[in-house]
Amino acid sequence: MGSLPVSLDDIKKAAERIEPFAYRTPLYYSENWSSETGAEVYLKLECYQPTRAFKVRGAANKLSQLTSSQRKAGVVAASSGNHGLAVAYVAKRLGIPATIVVPVTAVAAKVEAIEEQGATILRCGTRGRERIEKALDIAAQTGAVFVHSFDDPQVIAGQGTVGLEIIQDLPDVQTVVVPVGGGGLISGIAVALKAINRSIHVIGVQAEGAPSMYESLRLGKPVVLDKVETVADGLSPGEAGRYTYSIVKELVEKIILVGDNEIRGATATLLRKSHILAEPSGAAGLAAVKKLGITSGEKTAFVISGGNISLSFLRSLLAEMPA
Amino acid sequence: MGSLPVSLDDIKKAAERIEPFAYRTPLYYSENWSSETGAEVYLKLECYQPTRAFKVRGAANKLSQLTSSQRKAGVVAASSGNHGLAVAYVAKRLGIPATIVVPVTAVAAKVEAIEEQGATILRCGTRGRERIEKALDIAAQTGAVFVHSFDDPQVIAGQGTVGLEIIQDLPDVQTVVVPVGGGGLISGIAVALKAINRSIHVIGVQAEGAPSMYESLRLGKPVVLDKVETVADGLSPGEAGRYTYSIVKELVEKIILVGDNEIRGATATLLRKSHILAEPSGAAGLAAVKKLGITSGEKTAFVISGGNISLSFLRSLLAEMPA
Repeated sequence: MGSLPVSLDDIKKAAERIEPFAYRTPLYYSENWSSETGAEVYLKLECYQPTRAFKVRGAANKLSQLTSSQRKAGVVAASSGNHGLAVAYVAKRLGIPATIVVPVTAVAAKVEAIEEQGATILRCGTRGRERIEKALDIAAQTGAVFVHSFDDPQVIAGQGTVGLEIIQDLPDVQTVVVPVGGGGLISGIAVALKAINRSIHVIGVQAEGAPSMYESLRLGKPVVLDKVETVADGLSPGEAGRYTYSIVKELVEKIILVGDNEIRGATATLLRKSHILAEPSGAAGLAAVKKLGITSGEKTAFVISGGNISLSFLRSLLAEMPA
Repeated sequence: MGSLPVSLDDIKKAAERIEPFAYRTPLYYSENWSSETGAEVYLKLECYQPTRAFKVRGAANKLSQLTSSQRKAGVVAASSGNHGLAVAYVAKRLGIPATIVVPVTAVAAKVEAIEEQGATILRCGTRGRERIEKALDIAAQTGAVFVHSFDDPQVIAGQGTVGLEIIQDLPDVQTVVVPVGGGGLISGIAVALKAINRSIHVIGVQAEGAPSMYESLRLGKPVVLDKVETVADGLSPGEAGRYTYSIVKELVEKIILVGDNEIRGATATLLRKSHILAEPSGAAGLAAVKKLGITSGEKTAFVISGGNISLSFLRSLLAEMPA
């Protein structure tokens, strides 16, 4: 693991840096998922973060390491969702000006939440690539630091603190299941866990309509998908990062694909059975529960990565549920 | 404060006892409620407890002090909701048999959640008084320990840990706003806060349709209401306890009444703006926000006491919200 871009030590240092910004979220033992699966199921509730997603960890680790001249120049990020909110949230607390490039089609509530953190909103195109180029342009012109939403070792180290907390709370954890978009979260978690105990299984879950890491592993190089289509917008970057791919290839057991119906079902069950509000990407790990092949009594942690569900999606879920 | 049934020391000891059972929940700074009010608004998120309500604290403090012969005889509680679930949850973890007396009209999902914790369910009548008498009968016949949902010094001390955590996280807190049903939560919080800093204001909020503590203060003795009618079932015991009344009378600044529409509005705003799932009673403090007279910059903590919202209520809230 010496050649990987992120080390356990980076993650341990990140844990100290992010402490003023991110909560140490609960690892919740779930009676109903345990009896459903026969395993011992724990949920790592990142949907309880102040920004309702794990992204605050990576943003905090990145931004808190900027020099004072970088802080003056500000930060810029391309995101329509949780990463943009996380960067704005941490930047506000550090007194750093932030610009967030969002798609012209961004949901009003998400944009409002970012604006509430004092960030400047810039609307640009509809595709992730366009937003990233715009953000890089701004960085080049203004000297602002571009904060990638996943393919940055400092961001990955920040997300890795999730893994550190899981093993602190459940030292004999056997399997950890993580939703995968660009791969920042699973990369960090895998580095943390495997460095501590190589035998822990780390399994990723992607949407069938956005299988970027799955395809990257199959083809042996990080790919960019032509199109993505999934109900889980948090899983939709449509590409694997270079850093994240190199870590996942080395440390992750496998990537499982799940369909939108499975994702909807898991989100609904979490809400109905446990009153836990996850967004679809947040519940994606649980959507794979039948495909995992977990054995009886296996201590399995599912990372519930976020809770910023749209009201329209929530409404449609409730409409399908029994009274 | 020497004559009160609960002391700061009881609460400090409770904090140690409940640690294996209850989370130390976040005190979340809310940008949108702060800008709405001009105050500095913090939310104490008890809806993030493993049982999604503060009640686990009182139950944990009570049950963990039982003798081994009491543990064998078991515990019994009368509750249709959060208290029943909390007692069942803690009892399971301590290996104590638990019986929960619920109304014949109890919502299926709530009963299921209690059963999932291995408790025996007993259905009895529709009124709280009937359930309590039934539970006391069982206690008398079997030797099981009756666990009152609010009027018990050990339960009150457990709930008081909420106050201790608030002042640890925000030492210069000026005002704390607490939903009031039977008064267990506000009593414990008031004892903790006032013992540490007498100048902190503790304000209770009750439903207009269930103003038991409000009326008790007005009449100078704990009252039992003839009927209660509120959308917030967590606020509906319809009576003040003897212990809780004696503490509230001594230490609480005032009780404010809110209507069902205000409660619905606060629950909806929490969900829409912050993706925080509170039940109506949990959001009742925020429902009083315009009636509090909080001043600019005042550091104010609202206890969001629970998150076990019914799906039908959630559905009706969403139906009223803009897309």
